[in-house]
Amino acid sequence: MSTLIGQAGIVVQNIERADAKVVDALGACGVATVHEAQGRKGLLASHMRPIYSGVRLAASAVTISAPPGDNWMVHVCIEQCQAGDIMVLAPTSPCEDGYFGDLLATSAQARGVRGLIIDAGVRDVRDLKEMNFPVWSRAIFAQGTVKETLGSVNVPVVCAGALVNPGDIIVADDDGVCVVRRHEAEDVLIKAQKREANEIAKRDRLAKGELGLDIYDMRARLAEKGLKYV
Amino acid sequence: MSTLIGQAGIVVQNIERADAKVVDALGACGVATVHEAQGRKGLLASHMRPIYSGVRLAASAVTISAPPGDNWMVHVCIEQCQAGDIMVLAPTSPCEDGYFGDLLATSAQARGVRGLIIDAGVRDVRDLKEMNFPVWSRAIFAQGTVKETLGSVNVPVVCAGALVNPGDIIVADDDGVCVVRRHEAEDVLIKAQKREANEIAKRDRLAKGELGLDIYDMRARLAEKGLKYV
Amino acid sequence: MSTLIGQAGIVVQNIERADAKVVDALGACGVATVHEAQGRKGLLASHMRPIYSGVRLAASAVTISAPPGDNWMVHVCIEQCQAGDIMVLAPTSPCEDGYFGDLLATSAQARGVRGLIIDAGVRDVRDLKEMNFPVWSRAIFAQGTVKETLGSVNVPVVCAGALVNPGDIIVADDDGVCVVRRHEAEDVLIKAQKREANEIAKRDRLAKGELGLDIYDMRARLAEKGLKYV
Amino acid sequence: MSTLIGQAGIVVQNIERADAKVVDALGACGVATVHEAQGRKGLLASHMRPIYSGVRLAASAVTISAPPGDNWMVHVCIEQCQAGDIMVLAPTSPCEDGYFGDLLATSAQARGVRGLIIDAGVRDVRDLKEMNFPVWSRAIFAQGTVKETLGSVNVPVVCAGALVNPGDIIVADDDGVCVVRRHEAEDVLIKAQKREANEIAKRDRLAKGELGLDIYDMRARLAEKGLKYV
Amino acid sequence: MSTLIGQAGIVVQNIERADAKVVDALGACGVATVHEAQGRKGLLASHMRPIYSGVRLAASAVTISAPPGDNWMVHVCIEQCQAGDIMVLAPTSPCEDGYFGDLLATSAQARGVRGLIIDAGVRDVRDLKEMNFPVWSRAIFAQGTVKETLGSVNVPVVCAGALVNPGDIIVADDDGVCVVRRHEAEDVLIKAQKREANEIAKRDRLAKGELGLDIYDMRARLAEKGLKYV
Amino acid sequence: MSTLIGQAGIVVQNIERADAKVVDALGACGVATVHEAQGRKGLLASHMRPIYSGVRLAASAVTISAPPGDNWMVHVCIEQCQAGDIMVLAPTSPCEDGYFGDLLATSAQARGVRGLIIDAGVRDVRDLKEMNFPVWSRAIFAQGTVKETLGSVNVPVVCAGALVNPGDIIVADDDGVCVVRRHEAEDVLIKAQKREANEIAKRDRLAKGELGLDIYDMRARLAEKGLKYV
Repeated sequence: MSTLIGQAGIVVQNIERADAKVVDALGACGVATVHEAQGRKGLLASHMRPIYSGVRLAASAVTISAPPGDNWMVHVCIEQCQAGDIMVLAPTSPCEDGYFGDLLATSAQARGVRGLIIDAGVRDVRDLKEMNFPVWSRAIFAQGTVKETLGSVNVPVVCAGALVNPGDIIVADDDGVCVVRRHEAEDVLIKAQKREANEIAKRDRLAKGELGLDIYDMRARLAEKGLKYV
Repeated sequence: MSTLIGQAGIVVQNIERADAKVVDALGACGVATVHEAQGRKGLLASHMRPIYSGVRLAASAVTISAPPGDNWMVHVCIEQCQAGDIMVLAPTSPCEDGYFGDLLATSAQARGVRGLIIDAGVRDVRDLKEMNFPVWSRAIFAQGTVKETLGSVNVPVVCAGALVNPGDIIVADDDGVCVVRRHEAEDVLIKAQKREANEIAKRDRLAKGELGLDIYDMRARLAEKGLKYV
Repeated sequence: MSTLIGQAGIVVQNIERADAKVVDALGACGVATVHEAQGRKGLLASHMRPIYSGVRLAASAVTISAPPGDNWMVHVCIEQCQAGDIMVLAPTSPCEDGYFGDLLATSAQARGVRGLIIDAGVRDVRDLKEMNFPVWSRAIFAQGTVKETLGSVNVPVVCAGALVNPGDIIVADDDGVCVVRRHEAEDVLIKAQKREANEIAKRDRLAKGELGLDIYDMRARLAEKGLKYV
Repeated sequence: MSTLIGQAGIVVQNIERADAKVVDALGACGVATVHEAQGRKGLLASHMRPIYSGVRLAASAVTISAPPGDNWMVHVCIEQCQAGDIMVLAPTSPCEDGYFGDLLATSAQARGVRGLIIDAGVRDVRDLKEMNFPVWSRAIFAQGTVKETLGSVNVPVVCAGALVNPGDIIVADDDGVCVVRRHEAEDVLIKAQKREANEIAKRDRLAKGELGLDIYDMRARLAEKGLKYV
Repeated sequence: MSTLIGQAGIVVQNIERADAKVVDALGACGVATVHEAQGRKGLLASHMRPIYSGVRLAASAVTISAPPGDNWMVHVCIEQCQAGDIMVLAPTSPCEDGYFGDLLATSAQARGVRGLIIDAGVRDVRDLKEMNFPVWSRAIFAQGTVKETLGSVNVPVVCAGALVNPGDIIVADDDGVCVVRRHEAEDVLIKAQKREANEIAKRDRLAKGELGLDIYDMRARLAEKGLKYV
Repeated sequence: MSTLIGQAGIVVQNIERADAKVVDALGACGVATVHEAQGRKGLLASHMRPIYSGVRLAASAVTISAPPGDNWMVHVCIEQCQAGDIMVLAPTSPCEDGYFGDLLATSAQARGVRGLIIDAGVRDVRDLKEMNFPVWSRAIFAQGTVKETLGSVNVPVVCAGALVNPGDIIVADDDGVCVVRRHEAEDVLIKAQKREANEIAKRDRLAKGELGLDIYDMRARLAEKGLKYV
């Protein structure tokens, strides 16, 4: 399927998705923990910011490769979506036009779509917040788009610097956005949950005033590297 | 008047403004709708962001062309303002200094000014929020300015990439900022309201699960362009 | 001490701090007022933004010079902190990795640290907000860091364009971040408080509709510079 | 005509141009001198850079308002061009796609077009340099464009922050790009040439070691402002 | 192999490369032509610029995934290179440190490496130019790096927004950088050469003054879309 | 003297400079080598680029702290310059106006000034190149400046992120700009020259095809860290 990357004019209809329970459990862990659990990979660039704060979710990626300033493929994509999906839109050249607003959100929400990840612009953000339809985007910009040129749906895309395959899991919260490969999802979840359990104990010790220098046993290695206290 | 653009040392005292009811009605439509209604023109660049969210307004532009790091003309401008106006400041070279804070806002608010659009910096943003004095700006920056060099008031300016004439209508909300020509205001309003009415019906159909592909009758044209479902 | 700037592998243990009452009083004045009171110097660049709004504080700087993508020195730094301190981290080359999250914040808060100024990234921002641990940063980014290379603690650093010495006072609020030299703190405080008292009277006059043009006696000088009313 | 700004679907066929001798003489003065001579206005933003250095020219603007990623209007524009013109392209939303390459340059050059000013991308830059076809652009980017959506030719445009009317004079060199209003061209030329003559004498005195402090008689005013030599 | 993306600590030793004649022939076509020939995909972002102009080449990608500010993997990579290769380095988080200078270039050149594509910084650029060792990079920056943390060699990387697999073909010139999938290389070459042949005839007609409007038969479709000549 | 940082209205007349032979010898080493020799500190930000390539120099810093858009202090500075100096200008808030052009360069060159480092804009770059007057700047921009507000000369400044004291040594070439503390200059020179000598031998071995992996004995440590060859 990786040969489809960047190809225009294709809609892949049947994609595999991860188990819904695994997806939801990853969402509960949050971006920073999942990113660490999978070996510090999969982050989208830091310019991807939520249009409002406080949301933490995970969902299955349905991908859109779209021409600059053309949101035709979003309409095509919505038909391919199921409850529990999130749309991931990557423009084929850099663009911050507002591909998406409250009407498309109404349509997506009617199919159970959980949100949108878009390396471009979004508009009607006040309405989207009222609708509880979260978006992580590069820009907020009212600039309209046309419907003239084909892109593709459910091909692999590079979105904000990260490769996203259809069916991969997107984890997003106030820290940004992370992608988890579908077939690695269960393994990453186990590591993430272990990490969380491990952090509870450490948090307690730190809260009581113990130092990371001691908890993580750093003093000898710092001295060996030559750290001087003056 | 367009010959005055960029000229320094001039204050135009009598400018024409649009009808207050038209202005207010445009404000109720919001940026994205107004922008579409007037043929997708008039948007200021996406770096113009509100200092706090949730405001939606329209007002008549009183313009300021100001040297970098010099806010003298803001004082000159306030005298030219009426209730229902908004100040629009464009620096003559790129600058993010804090031209405007709570004292100037107090003065402007006393004259009924509704807010500020500034392609530079603003400060005292906590106070401005408490005062309900909205600002859309390029930056939040406490850097002070001087009062040494003349600019102009009520000449046409290019602000964040858009031409703004004194008396033009500024529409601003969480999506950004849009300018409407004064003599086009009524026509744009009619189109914007028609657009809104039209959207209500569509929103209902989309909420019930109908697809944009069908509502907008896109399938034939997509096939004709060569879209392939695989 | 200025010869230590940029030097790696050093921890300065005993630094002098300003009087706690002076520090707190500077915090009450806020960034814009303090910046003006000390002659418009000391501002960090405008890309330093709070991760949540509404906080206004001052604290004594404990500085960290850290390699890109390596947060080892944060652990070393926390041991050097006292109640009333704020950590100021400058990477040795531009970086937006997330050096700091909720575990480090728990540890810092246990020692009475008031917050973090970091010209790089931060993560776990939802947790940090819940903990009331404020951060001003260049980026929000979940990207993890390593613990491999030495930096220094309590050497002078250039952070977001401003020189910060250990023990200098950091003032931070929604307008950004400002540094006050430790030995100038009392003098700056007196000027800042005088400035505030002075502004109260002006704010009243402006709120009643008097113009800055008259209060500040600007009309003659504007005319002399050649301002024309048309 | 200013009501046409931003309007799509229009080609204005007959535009007035400034006298060819005036245009050429402005070109000989260069950007910095012309910009000063007309009161420091008319500069395009500093991101507009030449694709190769050493060119200095002036020409009459033929303007293009183009959708993002769509270069159809460039073909339409070329038919409207005369010898001595320069094309000025402003996208209707931010875009850095490569609208223009060696084939279009061949066509434009065949009609006597002197170059291109484009607040977007350009490609085939090696060929353009060999052809002596200068371009000032925001980006060099091979990304292709489509021919699907109408824009306009010879309407006023805001290009890189400056208003450009068809028939205005564009002056461009290694310092960037400046626009001169058509009806102000002769007046600006006289001031620019006077400025140049004036600078020759000053350059001689400065080259001999006289100081600007003395030539411009600055010492008294510096002292009055409070400058202290220590 | 796509599961390896972003993984640390792995060196893939045996990669397949495209036929050398195909690679060289793609290089002769240049970036803009190859990009068009493969359906407008595969471009790296426009911030990737050559450190000196005039080079046009193609080569087989040997990839490096490297931590920020750590160039250890470049040494590991060079051992994996053959004559006709080009190194492609993507940092795991944004970084502009100078990973590469004249010593590494000497070593790479000794093995027949043709250049470097790096979404980070490079230094010793004067020496590199003298050595005829071309680099396309995000930045020129003398900042040194360390050798402390593992990355990977010959895993797929996302470099400047484009997915690059080891063995893919990199085409680079003054227009930027483009990647061609290894197994698509021959097909792309055929299309690129056809495209070039086709352009020769068009260039002639355009040079003689024929218009693109006529050559490409655009007038009817423009009229149908509603273009008005006034 | 560090208390003077950011202070306005002061000209320090007598500054100490490093030995001319040491300065020139540092210049011969170049930025990357000097930066490494002094422990990877002192680099100015990578946005500081030469207006033309091929220059390599060192000189004693004469510093200018200047208001945004005001070049008055450049005139004041030139009087303080000696043969072998370089001017280093830091604006007090971010600015890209063209503070400096061919007339000021003529005056500076008449006093033996070797160049300019400016974290703002420069103009007349074609003339400056013809005059062999090198400049490293943030921008090339023809925007003019005023002479209204005092700054300071020969106070410490933070320029492009680096602290520069008057009399410090500036090293600049195509890689960028580095500052060396005056009292560390001799020590840094010794280390830089040792480094260069050391590199000659290595360059020979690398040119003959030996690998850095072997020369620097990296294989064991890579294995210990867990690098896997597959």
